[in-house]
Amino acid sequence: MSLNPTQDFLTWTRRIQDDIEIFLREVLPAASLVPQRLHEAMRYAVLDGGKRIRPMLAYAAGQITGASHERIRVAAAATELIHCYSLVHDDLPCMDNDVLRRGKPTCHVEYDESTALLVGDSLQSLAFQLVSEYTLADNGETQLTMIKLLAQASGSHGMAGGQAMDLANVGKTPTLPELELMHIHKTGALIRASILLGAYCGKPLPDEELQRLDRYAKCAGLAFQVVDDVLDAEADTATLGKTAGKDATDEKPTYVSLMGAAGAKQFGQELYEDAISALATFDEKADHLRHLAAYIVKRQY
Amino acid sequence: MSLNPTQDFLTWTRRIQDDIEIFLREVLPAASLVPQRLHEAMRYAVLDGGKRIRPMLAYAAGQITGASHERIRVAAAATELIHCYSLVHDDLPCMDNDVLRRGKPTCHVEYDESTALLVGDSLQSLAFQLVSEYTLADNGETQLTMIKLLAQASGSHGMAGGQAMDLANVGKTPTLPELELMHIHKTGALIRASILLGAYCGKPLPDEELQRLDRYAKCAGLAFQVVDDVLDAEADTATLGKTAGKDATDEKPTYVSLMGAAGAKQFGQELYEDAISALATFDEKADHLRHLAAYIVKRQY
Repeated sequence: MSLNPTQDFLTWTRRIQDDIEIFLREVLPAASLVPQRLHEAMRYAVLDGGKRIRPMLAYAAGQITGASHERIRVAAAATELIHCYSLVHDDLPCMDNDVLRRGKPTCHVEYDESTALLVGDSLQSLAFQLVSEYTLADNGETQLTMIKLLAQASGSHGMAGGQAMDLANVGKTPTLPELELMHIHKTGALIRASILLGAYCGKPLPDEELQRLDRYAKCAGLAFQVVDDVLDAEADTATLGKTAGKDATDEKPTYVSLMGAAGAKQFGQELYEDAISALATFDEKADHLRHLAAYIVKRQY
Repeated sequence: MSLNPTQDFLTWTRRIQDDIEIFLREVLPAASLVPQRLHEAMRYAVLDGGKRIRPMLAYAAGQITGASHERIRVAAAATELIHCYSLVHDDLPCMDNDVLRRGKPTCHVEYDESTALLVGDSLQSLAFQLVSEYTLADNGETQLTMIKLLAQASGSHGMAGGQAMDLANVGKTPTLPELELMHIHKTGALIRASILLGAYCGKPLPDEELQRLDRYAKCAGLAFQVVDDVLDAEADTATLGKTAGKDATDEKPTYVSLMGAAGAKQFGQELYEDAISALATFDEKADHLRHLAAYIVKRQY
């Protein structure tokens, strides 16, 4: 298939973005509720921004298993809340110390550090509240499996662990496998969880198909990070909506610093092809996942 | 009943402390696993310390419903992990900026701020992993209710929200109802969750008994905080294992600053009596809860 997104796909992405925005507005506590400043800051950190890639992946994976819209949006919102919490904490002065995110001042700049800390903490709790409060599966046991998957993807064996590895890498030159291990944790784990949670919302998949979906998830997640590294090195701040060139300034090893820009782009293309081939046995129900893989490697921000 | 703990009760508390320590050691990632520094710091923040009041309350509540030891210890460990994560984040420079906790340097002093931030984040994820991974109830739906309860108690409508209210109160003189609202969130919500989660591990309670348990939880949780305020004002740092007199230094309103020490002690005693009367219709299976209420108001640290 072509790397150029069809009009149908672009319409679909906007529909998902709108739908998840409406649901997030609904489940985030109103800014009028005590403690107002915290709730206002939680909404600031989540709403009106972001590509919503994780929700899109959840929706697209749910299409393969015929999952209902009511279920997928909950799973999608939970993964997006975990993602947003990680951005708020990663931007804090003691971490990446960034002032710009999604084209706006970061949460601790707009509010203050203690509020931003509590925003992240509360968004994580809210994600787990959503996946336990709404019905996501035909039986409680499957839903418990989904919650466990989300918790593992978020914690020290997943996203938070990846962030710790990232911090440990600063000023060092890791090997490619070390860099990959870090990214599989930092970005890959939650992307994988988004896809699997979306799929689990529908009919159970045979093991072989679940493994294919998992391979797609791994390739798409890593491709996302490779492209992120290229964009950080080549795009400008206005386009990115976050500070460009920050990896080099911070002496962070990236795919660009280890492979060069051309090598990283080539690697991104290979990962895209792997992601597509993982979906080979799926019919047209997997087309949104296919388009999303292209979207991930072709994106400009 | 007498406020003096029996030898049996003291033996029981030590047994619970030992048991929860063993289980926490088992479920916390080994310090040899990548990322080692994060895992080592997670163990540092959780193990070898603390009174384990929340686990004790969970165990004691589970005795009323005949819950199995295997289930209660998971629920108890999850509430303790949430509690420990909150201590690590509350001690950070941008929050209470404290250097001593449980008689040891706080996590960000022993490690660094970014590690402490990730420790808190990861401990929260681990708590939700535990309550979704192990079997806690006879059916998945009850277990989902328990997870939702834990998530609500942790987030912006619970503990994290209480911390936000606490920060907003600094330098102000709230009314007693405002102070109580803050503490019901900051400390009370998780104490209540510990008790209800422990109870849910066993046979379902009739609504009327669940409400009595809930009233006990509210009184015990508030009593805990009132006594905390008295101890902060009157005890010394060595006894407390954390910096004494910090509330006054930080200009934090407390029950002592609003009611005076004598008034706060009297209020603690009244809450104890309310907690005991809430358990009036329970038989001797509730004795550990009764002893714990006494332990909470009589504790010296």
